[in-house]
Amino acid sequence: MHYQTFFKDALDDLRDQGNYRVFADLERHRGSFPRATARDGTSGHDTADVTIWCSNDYLGMGQHPDVLNAMHDALDRCGAGAGGTRNISGTTHDHVLLEAELADLHAKEAALLFTSGYVSNWAALGTLAGRIPDCVVLSDALNHASMIEGIRHSRADRMIWKHNDLADLEAKLASLPIDRPKLIAFESVYSMDGDIAPIREICDLADKYNAMTYLDEVHAVGLYGPRGGGVAEQEGLMDRLTVIEGTLGKAFGVMGGYIAASAELCDFVRSFASGFIFTTAIPPAVAAGAAASIRHLKANNTERRTQQAKVAQVRADLDRIGIPHVDNPSHIIPVMVGDPVKCKFISDVLLKDYGVYIQPINYPTVPKGTERLRITPSPVHSDADIAHLIGALGGLWEQCQLARIPMAAQ
Amino acid sequence: MHYQTFFKDALDDLRDQGNYRVFADLERHRGSFPRATARDGTSGHDTADVTIWCSNDYLGMGQHPDVLNAMHDALDRCGAGAGGTRNISGTTHDHVLLEAELADLHAKEAALLFTSGYVSNWAALGTLAGRIPDCVVLSDALNHASMIEGIRHSRADRMIWKHNDLADLEAKLASLPIDRPKLIAFESVYSMDGDIAPIREICDLADKYNAMTYLDEVHAVGLYGPRGGGVAEQEGLMDRLTVIEGTLGKAFGVMGGYIAASAELCDFVRSFASGFIFTTAIPPAVAAGAAASIRHLKANNTERRTQQAKVAQVRADLDRIGIPHVDNPSHIIPVMVGDPVKCKFISDVLLKDYGVYIQPINYPTVPKGTERLRITPSPVHSDADIAHLIGALGGLWEQCQLARIPMAAQ
Ligand SMILES: Cc1ncc(COP(=O)(O)O)c(C=O)c1O
Ligand SMILES: Cc1ncc(COP(=O)(O)O)c(C=O)c1O
Repeated sequence: MHYQTFFKDALDDLRDQGNYRVFADLERHRGSFPRATARDGTSGHDTADVTIWCSNDYLGMGQHPDVLNAMHDALDRCGAGAGGTRNISGTTHDHVLLEAELADLHAKEAALLFTSGYVSNWAALGTLAGRIPDCVVLSDALNHASMIEGIRHSRADRMIWKHNDLADLEAKLASLPIDRPKLIAFESVYSMDGDIAPIREICDLADKYNAMTYLDEVHAVGLYGPRGGGVAEQEGLMDRLTVIEGTLGKAFGVMGGYIAASAELCDFVRSFASGFIFTTAIPPAVAAGAAASIRHLKANNTERRTQQAKVAQVRADLDRIGIPHVDNPSHIIPVMVGDPVKCKFISDVLLKDYGVYIQPINYPTVPKGTERLRITPSPVHSDADIAHLIGALGGLWEQCQLARIPMAAQ
Repeated sequence: MHYQTFFKDALDDLRDQGNYRVFADLERHRGSFPRATARDGTSGHDTADVTIWCSNDYLGMGQHPDVLNAMHDALDRCGAGAGGTRNISGTTHDHVLLEAELADLHAKEAALLFTSGYVSNWAALGTLAGRIPDCVVLSDALNHASMIEGIRHSRADRMIWKHNDLADLEAKLASLPIDRPKLIAFESVYSMDGDIAPIREICDLADKYNAMTYLDEVHAVGLYGPRGGGVAEQEGLMDRLTVIEGTLGKAFGVMGGYIAASAELCDFVRSFASGFIFTTAIPPAVAAGAAASIRHLKANNTERRTQQAKVAQVRADLDRIGIPHVDNPSHIIPVMVGDPVKCKFISDVLLKDYGVYIQPINYPTVPKGTERLRITPSPVHSDADIAHLIGALGGLWEQCQLARIPMAAQ
């Protein structure tokens, strides 16, 4: 085989299908986020000012003074990296404090840090499902890639239930012996559609059929619940979940992932998960920044409330000009386009002509045929930003003769 | 099944075998590394000053002013986190510059960043071996967990060749059809024994049998070669390797991982690797710090030379007092104990009575029966630190009546 030719052909196929990805090269500006400088991908010389409308730094915590001060301070106190795996010199006091903060956030006995949300799902699900004898995983059909890979890694039996479908989940649970170990894996806020799982009913089923529950709250922590504990906190359900998994890289604005659960479960994953054991710990400054962010969002509702208001305003304005978007109870506004080439075209024009950066979301992040623009309003978007966004989308919909929905009021 | 009981029993088993891990809780002090404050694991109140002798911040770059200044500056410029995956708003200019720096370091067309060295191995090997039709991976028997998991994830056929054994590798290569795709996966410096692979001869075999080569230089980048490109640079072999993989979390002192290879290969992994695509990018400040570290070590040999001198000195001093250590050509000094309980005991006494922190290395990091103390001298260990270490080890060997090797000169 000629290896280079193989790689080249595979990339050409992607290009032909419209699924080849070009990353926008951005320079964020602290203090003026969501503003950034975009550079021309190839030369890097041409720059343009843009407003980011697709960030997962949902609350702008990535530029919060408490977070930055904590990071500066930790850098000055103890330097850059952790210098080792958690077991071999890489556990600093900042890691210990952050794990305590996370356990408290979710009212669990313990929490365990990973280098990312991806690794936390992969390692925790892989270890639990792989090491509990004869475990079967009941996995929501739309679970995130990191959960799917973790379940695959475990080599445990897997049953996929229809997305958010309680009847299908119950049918699958009922088909298994009551004493067979079971793990129900699902998310609270599904990041690409913005819909939310029926957590309470899933926990009821788990109780009925003696299953453990594993809830990914990656797109909910920091954002929902009086202290930012996620949808499970908002609905008073944290104690009913066996494992709550989250990230420090989205609403908390930094990087890293974790699980929160019983002391024994965390200790079990800590002791057996390859993806936890054999990797350098996150830098103390990252841990300190994340802890500061969590602390701030535990005590303050302002960011959450402002974000919810901005989300409502963008939705209302989109409705006003007839731009179709998926209705859902979360902070995520998907504008469906349904074609990778068109979706990229719209995104390119938004960037070039309007200075609005919304990355086109294409396969493999969403199924082919459901390509979309995914808009994430944040507390740091001003009313003028929203007016500009709506103007840009309106102009573009006009210019490209895209379909509008009839307006109820007209 | 009663889940909590299962976890508890598994942990009790670990304790019985002496393999239960207790993480030392450290507070590193910038400017005085390798000094740190150790806290009592449970209360966190009792503290003691210790000298770290087992860090993988091999050159002390984690406290280098260039690195810290670059991180402070990036925090001030663009805030804490990247705020998205690389594709969705998470590529900042600092990521682009770091990838260029890494490609240049290894004289390759391109480089691709991951959240860690672990993830880079898992994702790159998983994607290459999994997507190249009918690929077979020839994997050194002592490869790191992250490589093993990546190969396992690929579900490609795998042949394990005896550690660093060219005859065995050739026999396995020769047993395969010449036109069948093959990938030889190995490391340069093996981190627990400190031995080094015969890279040139492996590349010769790869040429002869039309195989790709994948070299993990995690414990070598920054440390070997005139610009810190690793053992392959030192031996003038970088152009002969298909993929060079490395970490930003050890000698470079920060966090993150990467591959360096042809533009097409990197683009292929970028386009298809789940572990690259579906995860938040590393913080711009982490990228900026790592780039500063690489730049410094490209231009300066001082840290490398001083480290090598310290390593030689510790080895000579150990020989002088007859403490057995594995002879190898690298910077890693393994003192073999061969029993998990004894190994932990020695480590505990070193910490408590002498303020010397050397984590006991036990299963699953090394095979059972090969438990060891792994000493990593760095340029920031002073002559007095070395004298104290040797005194402590000597005292402890006396106190515990541990075996010494006869001294040649006596
Ligand atoms: C549902 C879900 N889980 C996990 C992750 C991974 O988290 P992280 O970005 O911290 O790796 C993501 C996105 O990146 C996600 O959308
Ligand atoms: C040989 C080897 N490869 C890869 C890794 C993983 O690198 P990282 O710590 O950046 O995840 C390690 C150690 O952690 C290692 O020893």
